[in-house]
Amino acid sequence: MSSQTDSDVTLIGLGLMGRALAGALLKVGHQITVWNRTSAKAEDLVAQGARLADSVNIAVNASPVTITCVSDYKSLQQAFAPVADELDGRLLVNLTSGDSAQAREMARWTEQRGAYYLDGAIMAVPPTIGTDEAVILLSGSKTAFKTHQSTLAALGTATYLGEDHGLSALYDVAGLSMMWGVLNAWLHGVALLGTAGVDASTYTPFAVQMAQGTVGWLAGYADQVDSGTYPPDDATLATHAGGMAHLIEESERLAVNADLPRLFKALVDQAITAGQAGHSYPVLIEQFTQESRTS
Amino acid sequence: MSSQTDSDVTLIGLGLMGRALAGALLKVGHQITVWNRTSAKAEDLVAQGARLADSVNIAVNASPVTITCVSDYKSLQQAFAPVADELDGRLLVNLTSGDSAQAREMARWTEQRGAYYLDGAIMAVPPTIGTDEAVILLSGSKTAFKTHQSTLAALGTATYLGEDHGLSALYDVAGLSMMWGVLNAWLHGVALLGTAGVDASTYTPFAVQMAQGTVGWLAGYADQVDSGTYPPDDATLATHAGGMAHLIEESERLAVNADLPRLFKALVDQAITAGQAGHSYPVLIEQFTQESRTS
Repeated sequence: MSSQTDSDVTLIGLGLMGRALAGALLKVGHQITVWNRTSAKAEDLVAQGARLADSVNIAVNASPVTITCVSDYKSLQQAFAPVADELDGRLLVNLTSGDSAQAREMARWTEQRGAYYLDGAIMAVPPTIGTDEAVILLSGSKTAFKTHQSTLAALGTATYLGEDHGLSALYDVAGLSMMWGVLNAWLHGVALLGTAGVDASTYTPFAVQMAQGTVGWLAGYADQVDSGTYPPDDATLATHAGGMAHLIEESERLAVNADLPRLFKALVDQAITAGQAGHSYPVLIEQFTQESRTS
Repeated sequence: MSSQTDSDVTLIGLGLMGRALAGALLKVGHQITVWNRTSAKAEDLVAQGARLADSVNIAVNASPVTITCVSDYKSLQQAFAPVADELDGRLLVNLTSGDSAQAREMARWTEQRGAYYLDGAIMAVPPTIGTDEAVILLSGSKTAFKTHQSTLAALGTATYLGEDHGLSALYDVAGLSMMWGVLNAWLHGVALLGTAGVDASTYTPFAVQMAQGTVGWLAGYADQVDSGTYPPDDATLATHAGGMAHLIEESERLAVNADLPRLFKALVDQAITAGQAGHSYPVLIEQFTQESRTS
């Protein structure tokens, strides 16, 4: 391990997000070293005091913490191919988008080089970086997270998920699934009400109320999933199936896209076929924890 | 119109929900008349002071307001077949589940008999009837709603939607679509995190945060739909498509059901094919306001 450490944080990758991260670090007074495949993107940052390294090796060597934010894992591997023992004893925080398997593989590679590793996912758009609104999910070495927590906090709300390096990627895509679930269900409702001349802004407060009401049940439903018991205190799957049939018929009659409720009903029908008609909704987890049988 | 009006409200249909409605009316001191196809279900209510009518005609004739809550429109039509001018000048509040076309047809039938008509949908389970938690959606005659609002308030949060009698049914199914959208997206996330040994209760606070964050965007997105302009200030459809591809791949790799993100991506891909890659997410409304092209 080289002893030369002349900056607080190194940043590899200066795309839109990388530059936002670098800006947030500079803003709180950190000395940073940057590297990018095309160095022109560093110009603004250098004008603000960042040091531009000639190679990834030199960049990694300059700081106790290196943050990477490049376009994908292929670019990451190319950039780090020349890196040997420069990482020893340092922390690599990888914010490059990827899946949980890539994160765990990168963790092995990094740890073989004697480094600490945190894999991260940025749940934010570049303009919010550096504010509390920007949630940065991190998983991996808890020791490293605790040691460098104040540095990471400069980027946004740094949220530690656990030692498994794959967790950030999993929470990331699961959170996106929730986002698209809400957005598409909302659009379906907007389309239904649109057939009666109700505009989206008039309908939306009701949709918000329904979403918030449903969100309020999730903690209780989570207990059902964790205990594997599904008492139908509110409604049975059979009742849900009946409601879904109504929704499909109404959508079809009004020439509104009915793909979403058709998929919902297919999943419920599978569970009913499996003998779960009298259980509560979260019993459907058993349909989600196996590959599709509907398509 | 018969002049005999010896109770405040008549209730037709004494299933689980009908009995809950009758109980809520009795609780606030209303004199009620009830009718059910099988009269045995009225016994408890009669013991509490309700009058049991021998026929629907007599029941309707007894009160200025009749509330119906039977199993379906076929049962409703059978029950009301003998009714002629008994409805004249009175209000019928129909809480029987049905679609917007059935509601509008029932409105025509009722109004031909000189009656006011409100079509309603109960967004609640029987135990909550009579509390603020029980939302009762109502659409149709505004005059009748205003006149009888205090009576209807005994049932729950009586919410008036507009003169179009089909609105209650449409809001009802649209709200259910939102409910299932949230529940299924949550289950998908629970399944993904389950592959890493994270239990549902550990994952759920994050899912709640994501859902609430997304819900916060809906008012702004509604303005985009209403104005037909979709500036990609947060993310483009092309960016969403990339994220969906990640979610599908991760789900497939982990043998988690990927039907939901596959459907989301099919809708986004259609919009991209239609030249909307650079627009914000709500441009997808154009995929929802037409019949499915993906299945």
